[in-house]
Amino acid sequence: MCALAGGVGAAKMLRGVLRVVEPSSVTAIVNTGDDVVLHGLHISPDLDTITYTLAGAVNPETGWGLVGETWEAMTALDRYDGLTWFRLGDRDLATHLYRTQRLRDGLSLTEVTAEVVSAWGLGLRLLPVTDDRLETRVTVEGEGEINFQEYFVGRQHNVTVSSVRFDGAEAATAGPEVLDALAAADVVIVCPSNPIVSIAPVLAVPGVRDAVVARRDAAVAVSPIVAGAALKGPADRLLRELGHDASVVGVARLYRDFVATLVIDEADADLADAVQDEGMRCVVAPTVMRSGEDAEALARVVLAATGRPA
Amino acid sequence: MCALAGGVGAAKMLRGVLRVVEPSSVTAIVNTGDDVVLHGLHISPDLDTITYTLAGAVNPETGWGLVGETWEAMTALDRYDGLTWFRLGDRDLATHLYRTQRLRDGLSLTEVTAEVVSAWGLGLRLLPVTDDRLETRVTVEGEGEINFQEYFVGRQHNVTVSSVRFDGAEAATAGPEVLDALAAADVVIVCPSNPIVSIAPVLAVPGVRDAVVARRDAAVAVSPIVAGAALKGPADRLLRELGHDASVVGVARLYRDFVATLVIDEADADLADAVQDEGMRCVVAPTVMRSGEDAEALARVVLAATGRPA
Repeated sequence: MCALAGGVGAAKMLRGVLRVVEPSSVTAIVNTGDDVVLHGLHISPDLDTITYTLAGAVNPETGWGLVGETWEAMTALDRYDGLTWFRLGDRDLATHLYRTQRLRDGLSLTEVTAEVVSAWGLGLRLLPVTDDRLETRVTVEGEGEINFQEYFVGRQHNVTVSSVRFDGAEAATAGPEVLDALAAADVVIVCPSNPIVSIAPVLAVPGVRDAVVARRDAAVAVSPIVAGAALKGPADRLLRELGHDASVVGVARLYRDFVATLVIDEADADLADAVQDEGMRCVVAPTVMRSGEDAEALARVVLAATGRPA
Repeated sequence: MCALAGGVGAAKMLRGVLRVVEPSSVTAIVNTGDDVVLHGLHISPDLDTITYTLAGAVNPETGWGLVGETWEAMTALDRYDGLTWFRLGDRDLATHLYRTQRLRDGLSLTEVTAEVVSAWGLGLRLLPVTDDRLETRVTVEGEGEINFQEYFVGRQHNVTVSSVRFDGAEAATAGPEVLDALAAADVVIVCPSNPIVSIAPVLAVPGVRDAVVARRDAAVAVSPIVAGAALKGPADRLLRELGHDASVVGVARLYRDFVATLVIDEADADLADAVQDEGMRCVVAPTVMRSGEDAEALARVVLAATGRPA
């Protein structure tokens, strides 16, 4: 099974998936458009959020970073008036130190990620969508184009966006196992991640979108929009500002070319017909994952929707 | 006043100097041959040891690193089997994060160092001897040539050394203020640092040795060897292994071309004549700095030796 994944929503979804299928059969293809180099360190927020969540080590209050984290380095960085807007906990820093060192040693991001996943004792395969540079850049009204993290964390996504692009995507090559994993998957899950800044950059890497389109019948997406709003983050606002419907119908329009089935929340049951009018099968189920049990139940719904037993 | 400086011994000496002269009149020209890039971070051990010591923030037990430090990042790095032999405390990490970011921003090491020194509220000028790459490399018996920190920290300098060289020195340019500072100094102090791996790399940067030679009459060194032993580190062993006398006389032979006066410890009073036989003036005084008062007294001796009132 393959999953296209962003950060927090994908991490929760995968936590449910791992409760119902053999972890070694699961490959998550993860957005790296959010990756950023700060202090010379290579930071991969989506990869880390998934790793920490699946390891049961994520900070449950934020959905990112490590539980019980300390902040000595960031506090000390204040003395220098250093870059502290992107908060890196002391233990989290170790992941970035390690990743950066291993990349300097000549490993690919795919290889380092496998080491990190193994170090946390996880059984699934996490694949960065590409080992090449991919940088989500956001044009903000009155400011111009900025890096995704400057938008997402620096401005707390509390600004108006007029466009999003994925710098480096055209020149990037899909990670060495990515296209094969999609071709071999019995099921392709599009996790409830931000369609604009988490799923779109994954699809922007040459070959990935075509590989998913080829598996459309096996593909099921979970809407990240519930009752017109994102559960977390700026997906609803971004959809609106970029001319899409901030609804499950808007999501359906973005996904219908490469996904056969859309799972929407019970709160959106009245829109099921409208989703089907977009040419997708529609499954209505509870999609809000407050617990591992919620995530497991949603994973069963997703698998049932594709006809795979779970 | 100018000082040629390595790490712990120089830091203690400078602490004394700052007690007796106006800090703004003091320039320390600091060894960067110990600098190392680990985890992608630019680490400048001697600059940091001096900064932390003068700020009263150094760990008094080790002589390096910060007092009251925590080690969450290093402990977390163990999970990945990462590089933990070079211990970086969480608060100390902030210095390396900041330095690395600012170098990436395009500042020189000289400029970043000035920012760090200012952030700690220090009044003196700390100058890296060069902004260019300078890497002390050590040939270890049975192992071959390794980086200085691999030798010093990794092997805890508990190996036999057959040669030392300063990679990059020939191509390096002295820092932008270094040669002028030496030319303008009323006094040049060669701090009680390791002659082989702290003072020699400073002198190896083109122009520096000549600039010190030109100020020989104003130059006074404090012997880092007391009673045939280094107070800290491998200076005695290195001197012996590289064919020098591990004594104040051996130090005199290494320094006599560019230093007029050698301050030796009372424990070596019987060697004063032998030092003078090497063509240097010799001053006998207590040189072991256990306290700020010790360091201040030594600073007064050094200044008196040059004829400068203190």
